[in-house]
Amino acid sequence: MNVNEQLKNITTATITTVLLKKGLRNVWVRGAVPLKPDQPRIVGRAFTLRFVPAREDLATPQSWSSPKSTRAAIEAMPEGCIAVVDAMGVTDAGIFGDILCARIKKRGVKALITDGVVRDVAGVRGTGLPVWCQGAAAPPSVAGLTFVNWGEPIGCGGVAVFPDDWVVADDDGAVLIPAAFIEEIAASGPEQERLEGWIMQEVAKGASLPGLYPPNAENKARYEKTKS
Amino acid sequence: MNVNEQLKNITTATITTVLLKKGLRNVWVRGAVPLKPDQPRIVGRAFTLRFVPAREDLATPQSWSSPKSTRAAIEAMPEGCIAVVDAMGVTDAGIFGDILCARIKKRGVKALITDGVVRDVAGVRGTGLPVWCQGAAAPPSVAGLTFVNWGEPIGCGGVAVFPDDWVVADDDGAVLIPAAFIEEIAASGPEQERLEGWIMQEVAKGASLPGLYPPNAENKARYEKTKS
Amino acid sequence: MNVNEQLKNITTATITTVLLKKGLRNVWVRGAVPLKPDQPRIVGRAFTLRFVPAREDLATPQSWSSPKSTRAAIEAMPEGCIAVVDAMGVTDAGIFGDILCARIKKRGVKALITDGVVRDVAGVRGTGLPVWCQGAAAPPSVAGLTFVNWGEPIGCGGVAVFPDDWVVADDDGAVLIPAAFIEEIAASGPEQERLEGWIMQEVAKGASLPGLYPPNAENKARYEKTKS
Amino acid sequence: MNVNEQLKNITTATITTVLLKKGLRNVWVRGAVPLKPDQPRIVGRAFTLRFVPAREDLATPQSWSSPKSTRAAIEAMPEGCIAVVDAMGVTDAGIFGDILCARIKKRGVKALITDGVVRDVAGVRGTGLPVWCQGAAAPPSVAGLTFVNWGEPIGCGGVAVFPDDWVVADDDGAVLIPAAFIEEIAASGPEQERLEGWIMQEVAKGASLPGLYPPNAENKARYEKTKS
Amino acid sequence: MNVNEQLKNITTATITTVLLKKGLRNVWVRGAVPLKPDQPRIVGRAFTLRFVPAREDLATPQSWSSPKSTRAAIEAMPEGCIAVVDAMGVTDAGIFGDILCARIKKRGVKALITDGVVRDVAGVRGTGLPVWCQGAAAPPSVAGLTFVNWGEPIGCGGVAVFPDDWVVADDDGAVLIPAAFIEEIAASGPEQERLEGWIMQEVAKGASLPGLYPPNAENKARYEKTKS
Amino acid sequence: MNVNEQLKNITTATITTVLLKKGLRNVWVRGAVPLKPDQPRIVGRAFTLRFVPAREDLATPQSWSSPKSTRAAIEAMPEGCIAVVDAMGVTDAGIFGDILCARIKKRGVKALITDGVVRDVAGVRGTGLPVWCQGAAAPPSVAGLTFVNWGEPIGCGGVAVFPDDWVVADDDGAVLIPAAFIEEIAASGPEQERLEGWIMQEVAKGASLPGLYPPNAENKARYEKTKS
Repeated sequence: MNVNEQLKNITTATITTVLLKKGLRNVWVRGAVPLKPDQPRIVGRAFTLRFVPAREDLATPQSWSSPKSTRAAIEAMPEGCIAVVDAMGVTDAGIFGDILCARIKKRGVKALITDGVVRDVAGVRGTGLPVWCQGAAAPPSVAGLTFVNWGEPIGCGGVAVFPDDWVVADDDGAVLIPAAFIEEIAASGPEQERLEGWIMQEVAKGASLPGLYPPNAENKARYEKTKS
Repeated sequence: MNVNEQLKNITTATITTVLLKKGLRNVWVRGAVPLKPDQPRIVGRAFTLRFVPAREDLATPQSWSSPKSTRAAIEAMPEGCIAVVDAMGVTDAGIFGDILCARIKKRGVKALITDGVVRDVAGVRGTGLPVWCQGAAAPPSVAGLTFVNWGEPIGCGGVAVFPDDWVVADDDGAVLIPAAFIEEIAASGPEQERLEGWIMQEVAKGASLPGLYPPNAENKARYEKTKS
Repeated sequence: MNVNEQLKNITTATITTVLLKKGLRNVWVRGAVPLKPDQPRIVGRAFTLRFVPAREDLATPQSWSSPKSTRAAIEAMPEGCIAVVDAMGVTDAGIFGDILCARIKKRGVKALITDGVVRDVAGVRGTGLPVWCQGAAAPPSVAGLTFVNWGEPIGCGGVAVFPDDWVVADDDGAVLIPAAFIEEIAASGPEQERLEGWIMQEVAKGASLPGLYPPNAENKARYEKTKS
Repeated sequence: MNVNEQLKNITTATITTVLLKKGLRNVWVRGAVPLKPDQPRIVGRAFTLRFVPAREDLATPQSWSSPKSTRAAIEAMPEGCIAVVDAMGVTDAGIFGDILCARIKKRGVKALITDGVVRDVAGVRGTGLPVWCQGAAAPPSVAGLTFVNWGEPIGCGGVAVFPDDWVVADDDGAVLIPAAFIEEIAASGPEQERLEGWIMQEVAKGASLPGLYPPNAENKARYEKTKS
Repeated sequence: MNVNEQLKNITTATITTVLLKKGLRNVWVRGAVPLKPDQPRIVGRAFTLRFVPAREDLATPQSWSSPKSTRAAIEAMPEGCIAVVDAMGVTDAGIFGDILCARIKKRGVKALITDGVVRDVAGVRGTGLPVWCQGAAAPPSVAGLTFVNWGEPIGCGGVAVFPDDWVVADDDGAVLIPAAFIEEIAASGPEQERLEGWIMQEVAKGASLPGLYPPNAENKARYEKTKS
Repeated sequence: MNVNEQLKNITTATITTVLLKKGLRNVWVRGAVPLKPDQPRIVGRAFTLRFVPAREDLATPQSWSSPKSTRAAIEAMPEGCIAVVDAMGVTDAGIFGDILCARIKKRGVKALITDGVVRDVAGVRGTGLPVWCQGAAAPPSVAGLTFVNWGEPIGCGGVAVFPDDWVVADDDGAVLIPAAFIEEIAASGPEQERLEGWIMQEVAKGASLPGLYPPNAENKARYEKTKS
């Protein structure tokens, strides 16, 4: 089973717990909320885009035709990636609307994650592209943002994202897994999920929390027995 | 076809793009989110109301009976207007509850737009009045706000709104169109929508973005042909 | 009829109006939004929990087994209380996930109110525990918070909450009623609701607001007649 | 001795304490910091100015020549007033620079209070006009603000200010006294100052605080003796 | 030489570097700025005070005479401690004025650290008590805060502070050292200062940074020689 | 006279006015305040540095020795440039301390501009390097920031800065002049300063503002005469 398949069964809550135990506390993208309530969990590698603030001589409709445009960035996205966009948390200019999201979906991109917002939100929902963002705003990106490049290290929602880092997104938002940690997370996550499932059953039976979550020696032994 | 009818078919996303091309970048009301997910697009002229911060000697239940009350303001609203309320972005006191919204609806007001919040939100939803706001709070307006007047220039969500400016609101929020620009927007908007519809079809067919959106000469020609 | 039953029929909007008339303007918990859209109104007494910021030597997975843990706090919650948690408004670490919420529900706690967020939000929804909070975040509490104690005065969403104060929560959020005010609110609330119901009917008939809401002498008399 | 003279000897700290005892908790202008460290205490009546957000068709250098300009507002300021400017807390556009402040000073205005900032701050300091503000920014007002009117109720730093309310400003910032409260404050303030002076002496002698500040019956009696 | 003396020669910058190497990244109190520009470095153990938000029935001038008042807290402060006050970052109500600060100074308290503000700031400066805070505000604490207790774990400027933790404050602000880490910091700090002093001399001579700061093997050897 | 010399006599207030007339409203760096009160006006070309948020596996003391370190960036700074650092507005980790600032000064860099803060502020002041920043914090950059590169487009205080754009900084803060606009600003600025100087004299003589600032035809003629 590959990393993709393994991560699909691990919640972002579990991933952040495992990463914290390895010393990584800052991996959750602030402001990236699911645009639709029922989006599935998505796993993929980050393809980064970067905006800086708008400047009236640069952030123009003309810039949309330049070689360093969001359009060119989209055409550079590899199939199966997750687009992660540093919009500096700007919420009054939409980074992409229905047309760009339709093309992103068409290119086989798995999801769009940003600390900014989208525009023409009804249309974006219509494209079927899973999106995590801060919401919607009508104005075009150039009303507040200047696009500068793709494939660079970025900040997104207070998290450092480097090209090819892994991203997992579900109802709790989007989490970054540094490329160097992916094997370990994929390996240890399922066991953590299984343990938490057992604890949940114990709670359902009326067990109290101290000694159960996390389990003490006795409960660990009881749990281990269930696996054999 | 009048302005009202023309604008009904133009998204706020398109309106902000057209206004930006005319040099207006700051026309989208921050914080005015649709209270219900399926509100139709609303078009109308702004009727403004203005609050200042609460002062315990002024912001009292007694003030609700004064000649400069929110009650008097509501009775002054003309049929077909859109009420736009400057609540200074205050989110911990509701500007209106179910009773006031029921009366606003009864007077034939098309919608309520504010950078503040409403109270008794279940009741407000029940009135059928379309509302764009930051959410809900239980406390009455006087817990945080002093009402001062109607029919004045205001700020709402970071946008300057003058009486009789036009407002269009949809899923992307609320956009201000200065009265002097309305004819031009109503005239050029539909063409922009038609062009974007054609681009969307091209994307669906697999076209790539550079040269298509915005269209280069070749694509412009192809598009023009579709119109004949 | 006991206080609990009486308060169940009074909206938080009405409670804040009555408290404001008694000089209490700051009783509404900022940021505590219903986690599900259709949660019933909940009434109960506050059981408080308190977090301070995370410190790497204190906020550890090991701390979950300490005598002053969130686990111990949950086991101390009396049946029928409402858990009110001071998370200092932190939105990037979830105070509780599905396991803790399942146990809270199991202990007969009526609701969870916090100015922070929960994690594993799909699981939390599944427990059936009514929650008012700022949303969801994947990381565990120790990523941003150190738990210190229960049963102490706290701040929650800008409101002072003392153990055994009353809390009412509905679609408009959560409101604090100081223990010393509860009898009076429970007694005067229903009349306020009845009056507002009558006013709503008058508005439905087309009555205008000045003199009606609040009612002048004439309207007061008309209303009083309806009660006999 | 007139109100002006009486208030000159009362600190803003004392004024806020006395107003709080009368039920007014929200009278201190947030963000209005002395521009120079050694500005004297200033007392006067408020002359209000109001800005709304910038709109590119309104907030232009041309607007500086319109009849509703900041220039016209300044010429309408009466001698001895304090100019209080609602800049909506905007800190990236200066409301006035050296030229406007020089003219304000020339007209005999006692001070300028704003929740915004000034520009050309070195020049403004050179005019000798006492200013309370959030600091300095280079851009002109029209980069972020549209001036609309003077002589209206405003919000300034979260406080409601009505024309002709009284304002006192010192090292602790600027405080609003509603016109209706001025006689009482002017009358009771000096006694409060005298009492606090006596308490300060007792503390210097080594007295402990409980029973002294506020004084119990015994200490009240001791203090009263000192006055005879 | 005792811990106090050792720490007096170590900057807060150096202390935070050493703590970070031990895994503690969050030890610097946000918002605690020196009230006077030339305050000396202060070292001491934390005596904590805790406020929650104001509630009109609790936060009253009468509360100043209660057994759980700020006055009683001050009388409980041991000589040589540093008072650390959790004001929840509130900047529109002063926690203490000149009288309370004079008494704190009189009791031999070394310094006052808070994430809030003081009032009667001219008077506070006059007491000679070194203060680190966010600035000044005229209103009394009860305008925005309810005092609850002393000697408890608190949050201050985003940092967890437990009673008897160590605090060091200088021009860069205030830093928390957990009691368990103090010996190590006091021991390793001076060497770090000496090394940085040597690096500074090298920079003055024109050395470039890579290999120097931090030093590579060659430069480490050169530095070690200077110590013999 | 070269551009450098010409700009030295033009205030940032005047530069922003001239740029606004050319359609550029967003050129002032928010948060970049002079570290010392008496810093001279500085003119130079931007050398950009970029940080993203801290990640515990990247933002380490070890990273200070990497080829993409702040140390390497400093060694790449050309003499006479102005270092402009994108710290994403982070105020709880200092980008540079005394050692790095000493080296920057040594390399002939004219000034340091950032939307973040410095550390070891007493030492930084001692280096003589003119700095514009948000203040000071004790923790090292790696406590909150990961350095990624130099020589790239950045955002700084809400302004887009491209390598080799011009920067002017004085008491009002720091202003960006796009490289393409520099000749025009350098040419038209001095005339604007001369005009404002004449207006200031007129105000000193008692002239009123309307018709004077901006000048009407009559005043323009009077001013032109003074030049001959």
